[in-house]
Amino acid sequence: MKDFDLKKPIEILERTPVVLKHILQDISVEWSHANEGSETWSAFDVIGHLIHGEKTDWIPRIEIILSESPDKNFIPFDRFAQSTENQNKTLSQLLDQFEKIRKINLEKLKSKNITQDDLNKKGIHPAFGEVSLRQLIATWAVHDLNHISQITRVMAFQYKKQVGPWIEYLRILK
Amino acid sequence: MKDFDLKKPIEILERTPVVLKHILQDISVEWSHANEGSETWSAFDVIGHLIHGEKTDWIPRIEIILSESPDKNFIPFDRFAQSTENQNKTLSQLLDQFEKIRKINLEKLKSKNITQDDLNKKGIHPAFGEVSLRQLIATWAVHDLNHISQITRVMAFQYKKQVGPWIEYLRILK
Repeated sequence: MKDFDLKKPIEILERTPVVLKHILQDISVEWSHANEGSETWSAFDVIGHLIHGEKTDWIPRIEIILSESPDKNFIPFDRFAQSTENQNKTLSQLLDQFEKIRKINLEKLKSKNITQDDLNKKGIHPAFGEVSLRQLIATWAVHDLNHISQITRVMAFQYKKQVGPWIEYLRILK
Repeated sequence: MKDFDLKKPIEILERTPVVLKHILQDISVEWSHANEGSETWSAFDVIGHLIHGEKTDWIPRIEIILSESPDKNFIPFDRFAQSTENQNKTLSQLLDQFEKIRKINLEKLKSKNITQDDLNKKGIHPAFGEVSLRQLIATWAVHDLNHISQITRVMAFQYKKQVGPWIEYLRILK
């Protein structure tokens, strides 16, 4: 894509909660709660991570970039916070929570009436330094796709042995 | 998973058509029809491939394994057939077609009342030689996950430049 039309990432961001519900709602725990080995994430863990991002990452960083404050430093994001936060929740609760908070956040995003000039504004990422609002919003959408892909990969991993020789044709298992 | 319970792959197989509809239905062509470069597939192409598999691959191979015939050779699957078949169809038509044929095929699968003994029965794959019905059905489910993952990857690729330095954190873009 040559231009950056804000409607395009929003198309992805709007769909992800319902896509994840259709992949995971009411599925057996052997698919939703299994991971790829110690220190790796299950589908359940990924949903918790996505919720934490909605709370502490995307919108707060957009607001830092757009604010009048001269301090443009982002607060570092804790990529492991969900492991303690969601211990006692069900997958169904997390899927609902993600759907609700994403909807609220997209309403916030749209209410900002972001212009092409705004998209060039910058924030300071703790590792990368200067990044633009355009890059942040594009990353938000790709981050969704990344985690949908991760969930399908973690699920496929549960059948790594069961597929026998077909593993050779299945890129997701490599 | 230790045992092979036929209900488990069916959980995946039942969900895939509606998952793909929620990812792709009515999305901009910049997401659905773009690919990763020449000789690669768009999301649209992948749906065509999935339909072709429903018609010529999974159920026909299951039937070869379960049939009384002594000839257990599978017919080779044409992985590029969809490029000519679907030229004049819309994405929405393909998503509907996939949903219908998958539903019919899962009814066929369930009607066979496959037993644990049946799952050990063998067919002859053109490249791998002897494969079991268990492996074939597990592969059918993982093949779905593989292509959901591929579609998210091809979509993410369209924003490879737009994410700027965040590419470093996005496995889907590597």
